[in-house]
Amino acid sequence: MFEIKAKDNRARVGVLHTQHGDVPTPALMPVIHPGRQTIDVSKYGADIVITNSYIIFKDDELKRKALKEGVHKLINFDGPIMTDSGSFQLSVYGDIDVTNKEVIDFQEAIGTDIGTSLDIPTAPYVTRKKAEEDMEITIERAKEAVQYKKDNDISMLLNSVVQGSTFLDLREKCADELTKLDADLYPIGAVVPLMEMYKYADLVDVVMHSMEHLPDDVPRHLMGAGHPMIFALCAAMGCDLFDSAAYVLYAEDDRLLSTRGTYKLENLTEMPCSCEVCCKYTPDELRALPKEERVQLIAQHNLAVSLGELRTVRQAISEGSLMELVEERCRVHPALLDGLRQLGNYTEDLEYYNPSSKNSAFFYTGPESLQRPEIRRHIQKIRQMPKKSTLVLVPPTRKPYSKNLSGKLGRFYVYGEEKEIDLDDCDFMVLDIPFGLIPLDMDEVYPLSQNDAPRNMDTDSIEFIEDCLAEFSEYYNQVLIHQSIANHYGFDFSIIHPQSDEIKYVKDDIRKIKAIADYQFGVGAGDALFDGKIKIEKSKKTGKIRHISSDGKLVANMRASDSFLVLTKDGGRKLHAATEYPQNRVVVNQDSEPFTRDGKSVFCQFVVDCDDNIRANDEVLIVNEDDDLLAIGKALLNKREIESFNNGQAIKTRKGFKK
Amino acid sequence: MFEIKAKDNRARVGVLHTQHGDVPTPALMPVIHPGRQTIDVSKYGADIVITNSYIIFKDDELKRKALKEGVHKLINFDGPIMTDSGSFQLSVYGDIDVTNKEVIDFQEAIGTDIGTSLDIPTAPYVTRKKAEEDMEITIERAKEAVQYKKDNDISMLLNSVVQGSTFLDLREKCADELTKLDADLYPIGAVVPLMEMYKYADLVDVVMHSMEHLPDDVPRHLMGAGHPMIFALCAAMGCDLFDSAAYVLYAEDDRLLSTRGTYKLENLTEMPCSCEVCCKYTPDELRALPKEERVQLIAQHNLAVSLGELRTVRQAISEGSLMELVEERCRVHPALLDGLRQLGNYTEDLEYYNPSSKNSAFFYTGPESLQRPEIRRHIQKIRQMPKKSTLVLVPPTRKPYSKNLSGKLGRFYVYGEEKEIDLDDCDFMVLDIPFGLIPLDMDEVYPLSQNDAPRNMDTDSIEFIEDCLAEFSEYYNQVLIHQSIANHYGFDFSIIHPQSDEIKYVKDDIRKIKAIADYQFGVGAGDALFDGKIKIEKSKKTGKIRHISSDGKLVANMRASDSFLVLTKDGGRKLHAATEYPQNRVVVNQDSEPFTRDGKSVFCQFVVDCDDNIRANDEVLIVNEDDDLLAIGKALLNKREIESFNNGQAIKTRKGFKK
Repeated sequence: MFEIKAKDNRARVGVLHTQHGDVPTPALMPVIHPGRQTIDVSKYGADIVITNSYIIFKDDELKRKALKEGVHKLINFDGPIMTDSGSFQLSVYGDIDVTNKEVIDFQEAIGTDIGTSLDIPTAPYVTRKKAEEDMEITIERAKEAVQYKKDNDISMLLNSVVQGSTFLDLREKCADELTKLDADLYPIGAVVPLMEMYKYADLVDVVMHSMEHLPDDVPRHLMGAGHPMIFALCAAMGCDLFDSAAYVLYAEDDRLLSTRGTYKLENLTEMPCSCEVCCKYTPDELRALPKEERVQLIAQHNLAVSLGELRTVRQAISEGSLMELVEERCRVHPALLDGLRQLGNYTEDLEYYNPSSKNSAFFYTGPESLQRPEIRRHIQKIRQMPKKSTLVLVPPTRKPYSKNLSGKLGRFYVYGEEKEIDLDDCDFMVLDIPFGLIPLDMDEVYPLSQNDAPRNMDTDSIEFIEDCLAEFSEYYNQVLIHQSIANHYGFDFSIIHPQSDEIKYVKDDIRKIKAIADYQFGVGAGDALFDGKIKIEKSKKTGKIRHISSDGKLVANMRASDSFLVLTKDGGRKLHAATEYPQNRVVVNQDSEPFTRDGKSVFCQFVVDCDDNIRANDEVLIVNEDDDLLAIGKALLNKREIESFNNGQAIKTRKGFKK
Repeated sequence: MFEIKAKDNRARVGVLHTQHGDVPTPALMPVIHPGRQTIDVSKYGADIVITNSYIIFKDDELKRKALKEGVHKLINFDGPIMTDSGSFQLSVYGDIDVTNKEVIDFQEAIGTDIGTSLDIPTAPYVTRKKAEEDMEITIERAKEAVQYKKDNDISMLLNSVVQGSTFLDLREKCADELTKLDADLYPIGAVVPLMEMYKYADLVDVVMHSMEHLPDDVPRHLMGAGHPMIFALCAAMGCDLFDSAAYVLYAEDDRLLSTRGTYKLENLTEMPCSCEVCCKYTPDELRALPKEERVQLIAQHNLAVSLGELRTVRQAISEGSLMELVEERCRVHPALLDGLRQLGNYTEDLEYYNPSSKNSAFFYTGPESLQRPEIRRHIQKIRQMPKKSTLVLVPPTRKPYSKNLSGKLGRFYVYGEEKEIDLDDCDFMVLDIPFGLIPLDMDEVYPLSQNDAPRNMDTDSIEFIEDCLAEFSEYYNQVLIHQSIANHYGFDFSIIHPQSDEIKYVKDDIRKIKAIADYQFGVGAGDALFDGKIKIEKSKKTGKIRHISSDGKLVANMRASDSFLVLTKDGGRKLHAATEYPQNRVVVNQDSEPFTRDGKSVFCQFVVDCDDNIRANDEVLIVNEDDDLLAIGKALLNKREIESFNNGQAIKTRKGFKK
């Protein structure tokens, strides 16, 4: 029903399969008013729409037509249609005269693709009692709907809406309860007031607490979210569907949507957009048009901008640059920036979902970038690496640093106890924004070279560097700091190391590949993979390491784009022998063993266990329940995702070990 | 020839008048290749184009046609045409076989609207000697061209290009020398390599050092700047014209321009834009097209995006939100962010050009926002205000603060010597991002209420607040800090003021209007304007002060949008009597005195002197050379601009004093 094609942070580019066709997600569902729609949204690129079944139900003429000809004919749209129940009307008018089952039946009867049970949208900031009571009813009705669907062989897909107002534990509880139902889609409801009040930090809390308790194998729909300025941020939190009446409501009010906010036509001296309408008309010309014609044109602009932004979001997810887009979009209003900064509280969760390698460089765009999962992950990894006695900190050069650093390095200050320096007992690291400490031996690994930051530093960056230095100086007997770093950051040290002219960094390919292996697969992997007599082949063109053999057997290849190791079968065997279950492992069931050994990719439903530290794009070992090595491959999903999905690829198998 | 319609920082929305029509600026001039242009740029909204006279000159067929039918016919464009000389070819091939005068003659002969003398483009980072020698020739040729134009009654407008490589003093010297020539337009040359190398911080230095030495009454053209991601930043520095072959060169290379950077077609899974082409085609469809057709479509996209961005820039200048746009755009690459941060070194200059009131709120988008002129100006103004004995610092509420703060204020910590507190001897200020210290009496003045910042603070903001506190505590005997502020920022004070429950803020309208007058017109203005028996009328609807009378005479009205005072004639007289020449004054010559007294607006050419502290949108006194008060009005330009212009409005006169 839903499959993931690409991932970035919590965002997914996916495909939602319905009876009326496939929808690429994240997607916007324009709201179609069944009685008075005048804008043909499919003409402007809408792949899926949403309409209101209760409005159809309450209008005799619409109802008759919908029951006779179906909702697709009624609203003249061939693609997938989602229908809302009367929940919105319920939230506005307090009560409606239809039961949950009636609503389900009716939606099925008119041929909707995705129907919705009669949840209770609870406004933000109500009393806890109110939120709890509403939520209980919402859960009850969702249960009833799912059971009713099962009992009556209902074919439409079913939404179960997460409520709970602004009580984060209630959102979690509601999500947990609904997850048990195994519904087809999970909308997050009643967030529109938060967006209208510009409470984006609270929106982030509500969405993230819901999201962390929802399954990964279904689309999550942020109900009523239709302003293009928030699509990127909400996609990064894992929202797959948006819906919007904004394009037409704003048009009726002479307001133009933009990723930069909303423009009132009356205030425009220029059309600030590159869409077809904005290229063809001036504000004066638009203002002079008859109302109806003007609404059509502004709605066309609003749809073009909104659907264009969804394409931009999907492109960014596919290339791994979504957070750069989010950080740009969230500058358009301080309340959105507040939401972005609030998202910094969820870095641990985002890290879990974030792939370990991407096609895009990491661009530092401001203090918020320091919260991104890549940095947290890197610092955690080097925290765990084995330490030598002395840490030598060198200033950044052009990247990759190790290409430009060698030989004598200049004068150093000593930080910590001053002792004899054994160059063989030194860890060499570059101190730089945004990754803090970058061991020279592994500086080409993604994203340690594939990043850029401004030279003019902000204070958060400087403090981040100071914190890194303070933490890591604890792990070493002494720290040597290059004087240009000390001067740059204004560190004050009294001692200049007497032997400073003797400090030099000597490249060593074997030390390098071992360091990368430890960083990638865990401490000890380097020694295990690269024992015996090591032979390293480099690219003649780039000078980069390509192939690594041990005692005449090819153990690993180094990928040019991100310098991660791709194991051969021999390498897989060595890693398997050297590491403990479940480290680096994905465990498949007995039935799938022959296929896996045959080199076929591993599907989610055949995975019985998995190392929780595996991230999308990691190289993994595929084993059976007895920990026999069956194959090596690349993970496409993490453990939680694999467990959530009942189908779809989990691991792209590279090579199988035939029996 | 050029007039300014709206201003924001150093940016101007202007109109360039030419023989072939008016051009709204900032404008992009698409480059037209005279021999092989296949894209009709006027169809996509180009108002002005640029082509190369040397290419025409060197091709017999083109030359013949151009001389016979004119350049407009040759390149099939009815609007204004700028022509470049052979400078670019000179920079590439080292030498060309045409003289400066020949180039001028030829451009005039083919009917170009704006011609260019044969400058020498000097690359960045060359030796000083090379840069100096080149610059001398460039200046010589510019002189020769201007003289030649004068002597030969040449009607086309003339460019004089600023060179000097990356030597900032040479750029200044070149600009100074060219300014003396009184040319029609001033391009800034040879910056393309800086943009290609992503040296945006250096670009900012080069542009700003040139700009600060160029006149304000002519368009400044950033030669070769054609990527939409830099238009906003460069407009903020005062660039009025851009030119670009990028739209077609990139198209030929399957690259799509965007304000977010450049997309390679081969990497696209989606069309990340809302233009007509991106709405109609998928990347696969584009890739499948024949090369020629694809180039047309991508060029159309590139032009739509580029011209759309110029419209967005002009709209932002008109509404006063350009820096928000700049700060958003400069997030798309760390090197651009570096350029933006570099611009923070020029805040004093930007402040001089920045209007004192705008239609848009000030949005804080990150640490760079702290560098904006509005903040610098505010801090300087309150630094100069008279101080009482005690400073009371209260926490921010919703804005405007003074609407939500009154009565007892809670518990305070004491900072500095603890003394008796006289509530009548206290200055009450709110401590808040981004304006630091906001006196409660004037908190509704623009932009002290018209701003927003995220609640989650970055470290630069916190340091800014700490710096404000440290500086202003020097000016008072003691500082009382509300405990919630102290806790929020982690300030550590031992003493809680024993009388803390007694601290209250009592609103006082007379104190308020005097404070605003002092802030707006200088210390002492409040006492001078509002002596005698004061009567204050408020809006029945909003409760805001509207009219202020002194002894029965209306002295000033308060503008609802920004709470600045608009003086009446009586108010003008009082301010004039109380302040010294040239404070708040614009001095006009004898000839224009009758017109000014008649209430006619003041044109630049009639102004003989002007207070250097006057900013666009300031309320001013208009006097003659004997300092007799002739009228009151609103400044549209600052002193340097008024001196630079030979025509156009300088002051919008509100009321004249008839003799």
